[in-house]
Amino acid sequence: MATEAVPHRSHVGASPELERFYAEVGEFHMRPLWLVLADAMTPEPTPKSVPHVWRWRDVEPRITKAGRLVTADQAERRVLMLLNPALDKPAATATLFAGIQMVLPGEIARTHHHSPAAIRFVIQGEGAHTTVNGEKSIMSKGDYLTTPNWTWHDHGNESKEPVIWLDGLDMPFVIMMDAMFFQYFPEETQPVTKRMDDSKYRWGANLKPSWVRPSDGGVYSPLLNYRWQDTREVLHRLREDEGSPCDGILMEYVNPYTGGPSLPTMDAHLQLLRAGEHTTAHRHVASTVYNVAEGGGYSIINGKRFDWALNDTFVVPAWSWHEHASTGGEAVLFSYSDRPILRSFGLDREQIHQP
Amino acid sequence: MATEAVPHRSHVGASPELERFYAEVGEFHMRPLWLVLADAMTPEPTPKSVPHVWRWRDVEPRITKAGRLVTADQAERRVLMLLNPALDKPAATATLFAGIQMVLPGEIARTHHHSPAAIRFVIQGEGAHTTVNGEKSIMSKGDYLTTPNWTWHDHGNESKEPVIWLDGLDMPFVIMMDAMFFQYFPEETQPVTKRMDDSKYRWGANLKPSWVRPSDGGVYSPLLNYRWQDTREVLHRLREDEGSPCDGILMEYVNPYTGGPSLPTMDAHLQLLRAGEHTTAHRHVASTVYNVAEGGGYSIINGKRFDWALNDTFVVPAWSWHEHASTGGEAVLFSYSDRPILRSFGLDREQIHQP
Amino acid sequence: MATEAVPHRSHVGASPELERFYAEVGEFHMRPLWLVLADAMTPEPTPKSVPHVWRWRDVEPRITKAGRLVTADQAERRVLMLLNPALDKPAATATLFAGIQMVLPGEIARTHHHSPAAIRFVIQGEGAHTTVNGEKSIMSKGDYLTTPNWTWHDHGNESKEPVIWLDGLDMPFVIMMDAMFFQYFPEETQPVTKRMDDSKYRWGANLKPSWVRPSDGGVYSPLLNYRWQDTREVLHRLREDEGSPCDGILMEYVNPYTGGPSLPTMDAHLQLLRAGEHTTAHRHVASTVYNVAEGGGYSIINGKRFDWALNDTFVVPAWSWHEHASTGGEAVLFSYSDRPILRSFGLDREQIHQP
Amino acid sequence: MATEAVPHRSHVGASPELERFYAEVGEFHMRPLWLVLADAMTPEPTPKSVPHVWRWRDVEPRITKAGRLVTADQAERRVLMLLNPALDKPAATATLFAGIQMVLPGEIARTHHHSPAAIRFVIQGEGAHTTVNGEKSIMSKGDYLTTPNWTWHDHGNESKEPVIWLDGLDMPFVIMMDAMFFQYFPEETQPVTKRMDDSKYRWGANLKPSWVRPSDGGVYSPLLNYRWQDTREVLHRLREDEGSPCDGILMEYVNPYTGGPSLPTMDAHLQLLRAGEHTTAHRHVASTVYNVAEGGGYSIINGKRFDWALNDTFVVPAWSWHEHASTGGEAVLFSYSDRPILRSFGLDREQIHQP
Repeated sequence: MATEAVPHRSHVGASPELERFYAEVGEFHMRPLWLVLADAMTPEPTPKSVPHVWRWRDVEPRITKAGRLVTADQAERRVLMLLNPALDKPAATATLFAGIQMVLPGEIARTHHHSPAAIRFVIQGEGAHTTVNGEKSIMSKGDYLTTPNWTWHDHGNESKEPVIWLDGLDMPFVIMMDAMFFQYFPEETQPVTKRMDDSKYRWGANLKPSWVRPSDGGVYSPLLNYRWQDTREVLHRLREDEGSPCDGILMEYVNPYTGGPSLPTMDAHLQLLRAGEHTTAHRHVASTVYNVAEGGGYSIINGKRFDWALNDTFVVPAWSWHEHASTGGEAVLFSYSDRPILRSFGLDREQIHQP
Repeated sequence: MATEAVPHRSHVGASPELERFYAEVGEFHMRPLWLVLADAMTPEPTPKSVPHVWRWRDVEPRITKAGRLVTADQAERRVLMLLNPALDKPAATATLFAGIQMVLPGEIARTHHHSPAAIRFVIQGEGAHTTVNGEKSIMSKGDYLTTPNWTWHDHGNESKEPVIWLDGLDMPFVIMMDAMFFQYFPEETQPVTKRMDDSKYRWGANLKPSWVRPSDGGVYSPLLNYRWQDTREVLHRLREDEGSPCDGILMEYVNPYTGGPSLPTMDAHLQLLRAGEHTTAHRHVASTVYNVAEGGGYSIINGKRFDWALNDTFVVPAWSWHEHASTGGEAVLFSYSDRPILRSFGLDREQIHQP
Repeated sequence: MATEAVPHRSHVGASPELERFYAEVGEFHMRPLWLVLADAMTPEPTPKSVPHVWRWRDVEPRITKAGRLVTADQAERRVLMLLNPALDKPAATATLFAGIQMVLPGEIARTHHHSPAAIRFVIQGEGAHTTVNGEKSIMSKGDYLTTPNWTWHDHGNESKEPVIWLDGLDMPFVIMMDAMFFQYFPEETQPVTKRMDDSKYRWGANLKPSWVRPSDGGVYSPLLNYRWQDTREVLHRLREDEGSPCDGILMEYVNPYTGGPSLPTMDAHLQLLRAGEHTTAHRHVASTVYNVAEGGGYSIINGKRFDWALNDTFVVPAWSWHEHASTGGEAVLFSYSDRPILRSFGLDREQIHQP
Repeated sequence: MATEAVPHRSHVGASPELERFYAEVGEFHMRPLWLVLADAMTPEPTPKSVPHVWRWRDVEPRITKAGRLVTADQAERRVLMLLNPALDKPAATATLFAGIQMVLPGEIARTHHHSPAAIRFVIQGEGAHTTVNGEKSIMSKGDYLTTPNWTWHDHGNESKEPVIWLDGLDMPFVIMMDAMFFQYFPEETQPVTKRMDDSKYRWGANLKPSWVRPSDGGVYSPLLNYRWQDTREVLHRLREDEGSPCDGILMEYVNPYTGGPSLPTMDAHLQLLRAGEHTTAHRHVASTVYNVAEGGGYSIINGKRFDWALNDTFVVPAWSWHEHASTGGEAVLFSYSDRPILRSFGLDREQIHQP
C-alpha cells in the first residue's frame, strides 16, 4: 500500500497578472488550490511530531518538585504535560495527549467530566483511587484504568505515599474537532454508589449481568480497572506463543461488552518483548505513546536509536518506521494509540519492512 | 446537554520560584497542565472558524477569470479554495474543505487518488464528466457525486460550456490525523471499464447484484451520481410532510449498501425550505458547508443575519446557533458536514432553541 | 465444504438386557442417543420436501372456482396453499409457506397482524391494494410487496378484475419456533394515514428523511412496494453483465435502511435468464420458492427436469442440486428463500458443481 | 405485548360442493388456507412441549447402568437423551436437545464435527477432558464448555472416576432447517496443538491477542471453558445486587470477542437464587433447559409446582409462565435457551406478571 514520492505536476508559473489575481481573490477569502496542492496533498503523511523519550530520571524529580510547589486544589490536576518537541500545542502526537499526574497522600483531585476520554496507567505507588460514575477503584502499579467521555471522575490518595500515573487523553483530537465540553460536579467528590471492584465482577469474568443495559449502548468499556496482576499473568502465560513479528506478545485491552477497543477513540495494549527479542520494523498511520512497565531496551524509530528504561515514556509519530528490542531480559511496554479513529474511516495503513 | 460556562477553579499564583520551575521543566519538553487547563478544557466548543457567505456574484467572475489565466493541465485542478476568514489553513471549517472547480470545454483534469474523500455538487453547466474507478458519469446542475477515499478519479468536459461545481473534502481532518496519501495514475485518464450509469442500475433501485461483493466492505457508497432530477422530485413529493422543525424537508443521501451516510467521514443532505418557512434555531457540534441549489433566503447564525442567493456557498461553524428562512418562494440547500466522524465517538450533541 | 456420506460407527448390538434397559429409561422419558444417532446426525441434509411445480394452468381455474365458492369475508383470506407433496404440514419447504391469493372486485380482506412476515408477488391483475401500517399501495403484475412481522395489513380490490398474487410467509419457521402471535384490528379496514407511495419517496431514491427513526431499528424494509416497472428495467439494463454462473442476472431486493434483505427471515430475488442461458448447477442449504414472471424454461433439480411456464410456481428444497435454463427467449424468475435465517448462524453452505 | 385469544372469524360452511372442491385441489397439492387458519395462526404460541423435571435420582443410576451395558466405542457417545414427554422427536423443547453423557475412566469418545453447536455443563466428576479444534480442557463440576458449529471435538477421561455432564445442542433447530452436516475425523482423537487453557489466557482476561483474527469472524466464543471456580465467585460477589425481579442474579456467559451470547444460536446463563428468594412470574417465547448446580427449590410453571434438587434437569417450554424459588438456602441454576435465534428476527417477547 505504500506510495512512491513523486513531484506534483502542477506548474503554474509566476506573473504580475497572476499575483494581482491572487490578491484579488484573497479579498473574497478565496485562494487557488494550485498554490498549496503540493504541500497539502503529500504522497504520504508528513507528521510534524517527532520521536521523543521522556526519561523517568528527568520526570520523577520534577513531578515531585511540583508536589512541593502547588497543591492539587490549586492546580485542579497536578499534571506535567509531555509535549512533543515539534508541536506547538499541548500534545504528544497530533491527536494524543500525555501527562504525568501525581496525587499526594491526603489529596483530592476534584470531580469533573469532559468530552475527551482518558486513560490512566499507574507508574508508581499503591493506594490512590479513581472514582468514575460512582465506582471507586484502588490503583496499583501497572493497573490500566479507563475514564470514558463525559463520565464524572475524581482522584484521591488515602495511602502514605505519592502515587504517580501516566494520563492519556484524546484531547488534541477533540479540540481539532471543535468538540470540547467540560463541567464541574457540584461537590468536590462524587458519592461512591457502587461496591469496590463492582465492574470487575459484573463484566470482567466473561459473564454479564442480564438485567443491565449500558446507557451508552456499550461503546465504552464498563470495566474501570484492568489490573496488573491479571494482565501481567496473561503476558507471561503466552510467552511461548509466536506473537506478532513487529510487536512480540502484544495484547489489546478490550471492552467486554463489544470485544472492541477499551475506548472508542483510543486503543491500549500491553506487550511483552522477550529476552533478546528484536522485532521487525513496520510503520502505520496510527501514532502511539509508550510507557515502560518492566525492564529496558530500545526502539529504532525512523533510523535513529532511542534507549528506554523503566517508567520512561516515549512516542512514535504517525507513519514512522519503528522496531523494538529488549535488553538485559524481558521488557513490558504499555501503549495507547489513535488507531480506532483511523480505522473507523479506512485511514489506517500498515507497511512491514521487507529486508 | 448544554453546559454552563463556569470559570475554571485552578488558582496557582505566580512567583519567581514557579517561573523557574516552568523554565526548568520546559527544557525537558514538559509543561504544567494548570497553565493551559482553562484554555484547553473549555465549558463548550470555541471554534476558530466563523460564519461566512461566499457570494456567487463574487465567485463566478473570478473562477471564470482563473479559466483564462491557467489551464487545467497547469493547475492539476482549477479550484478556488473557499477559506474561512478566521482559519489559517486551507479549510472552510476545522475539518472540511470547500472549493469551486471549473472545467472548460475540452479540458482534462488528470487521474489521481488520495486518502481524503471528496464530494461534488454541480453548480452550473451540463456535460462535464467525472470518472471514478472505471465508471464515467455525466454531470448536470444539481447532481451530487461521491469520490471515496483512494479511488482513482479524473474529470473532463466534452460539452461546449464551462462546468462549475463545489468540491467538498475531508482534507483538513485527514491532514490533522497525519493520514494523507496521494498518488498519480500512470496515464492522464484512466480507462472507462463500466457502462454509463452502471452504479445507478446496480445499486440505485433498491436491488443489488447478488454476484458482487464490495471490495471495501460496503463502507463507501457504490453510487457514483445521485442525480438532481431524482432527488429534486423526492423533495417536492414530500413537500407536505411535517419535516424537521430545525431543517424543513431535510433528506440525507444514503449509501444503498448500508443505509448510512454516503461517505464514512461526511454526510450530505438536500433540503427544501418551503415558501415562508422559518426554521427553529439549533446548534450541534457538526460543522456544515451549504450551497444554495434553488431560490434564496437567509440564515441567522449566532444572532447575525446572513443573506444568501442562488449558488452562494456558506458555512455554519461547530456549535453555532443557526436557523434558516426562505424568501420569495421555496429554496433548496445542499450541504455536507463532519457529523459521521463525531457520531462515531459519541462527540456530536444537539441543542434546540427553547423560546 | 461437502461431506462424504460415511456409515455411522456406533455398533451397539441387541440383547434382551438392552431391550429391558431401553424400556426402563423410557419410563423416565429418556432414550439412548445411539439408537437415533445415525438418523439424526446425517452426513448432509436429508430434507423431506421434494421438488415440485404447481402449474398455472392447474392453479388458475381452481383459484377462480374458489372465488365462486367462498367469499373473502367467509374465508378471511381466499388462499389456496401450495403444499409440498412430501410434507405433512401447510408448507412448501420445511420453513416456507406459499399460497395463491385472489381478491375479487369490491372485496375486502380484513385487517390483522401476525408474527410471521409475508411477501406478495403479483401474478395477475391490476388495481387491488394492500395497506400496511397506514400506507396503501396499488398492486400491479410483477410488483413485490413486503408485510413485515406484526404490521397491520389488509387487502382490497377497487378495480373491475380479479387480482391474484403469490403469498410467501415464514410461517412454518415461526410455528417451529413456537413463536406464533395473531391479532385482529378492531375495524375491518385500517385508516389510511399516509400518502400513496409514501415509502417510495421517503426511502426509495437513495435518500432518507433525516427526521424519522424507524421504530423497529431498521430491521424491516420501510419500502412497501418494489414496483415491476422499476425492477424489470434494472434487469434489462444489466443484461450484458456477466452475472452469476449459477443464476444469471440475479438481483436481490434490499432494505434501503440497511442494504440487507427486505425481510429479516426471507430474502427475495428477481432474476433474468437470458435467451439460451443454461446455468451451472449448484446446491445450498437455503430452500427456495420460485414464480415465473416472464417467459418459460426448465430447471434440473437433483437430476430430474421440471419444465415451467408463465406464472407457474416451483420449489427447490434444501441442499438440492439445481440448474435453470430459459427456452424460447428470455425468462424472468421471482424467488424467495430462508437464507437469512441460515446465514445468521453460519448454517448456509453452497457447493457449485464441478463438471 | 400480549394478545387476547379471540376466535377466528373465518366461517366457511360445509357442503358437498365444497368437499368436492377440496378433493379436487388436493390432487394438485393445494389446500384452502381457511381450513387451517385457526389452527396455524393462533393468537399466541401453543407449544407442544410440556414442563418436565428429570430427577437426578432417576437419571444417575440409569446413566451408570448404561456404563455397564455399552462402551463409549460402541455407542459413539454414551448419552441418554432427555425427551420432552409431549414431543415425538429427540428434543427437550421444540428447538433444544438435552442429554446426559458419561465418560468412564480410560474411555475415548471419538472425534467428529457437526453443524449443530453444543454446550456441556459438568454435573459430576473431575478430570475428564474435551478437546475442541486442538485445545484440550480438563472438565470439573460446574464448568461450562462450548463446542461451536463444525468444530472438531472429542472427549476422554484420564481420571479414576466417571465424569457426567449435561449436553445441550441446537440439533432440533438445525434439523428443522434441513441444515444437518456431520463428519468423522480421520483418527479417533485429534492432535492437541494448543497449550492447556490456551483460550483462557488468550481471550479470557479482557485482553486479546492482537496478532490473531478469528476465522469465523468472531461469531463463536473463542473460550473453550468457563470455569466454575470463576463463575461461582462472580455470582456470590454480586449477591447483594438487586438483580432481575424474574431471575435473581442472572449472569450470561459471553463471547469475549463480541460481548454477545457464547454461541450464536443458544445463550447460556448461571443464576443465583438467594436464600428465600421467590421471583416474579414472567413468560417469554424463548424455551429454556435448566440444570440445578447448587441447592434446591421449585419452579411454578403455568400454575403447577415442580420441585427440583441438586443435579436435576428441567425444562420451561416457550411462552410458559414461570417463577423460581429457592428452599433451604441459596440455589444456583445453569440454563440455556434458544433466545438468540428468536432475537435475530424480532420474534422474542416477554410478559411480566402483574399481580
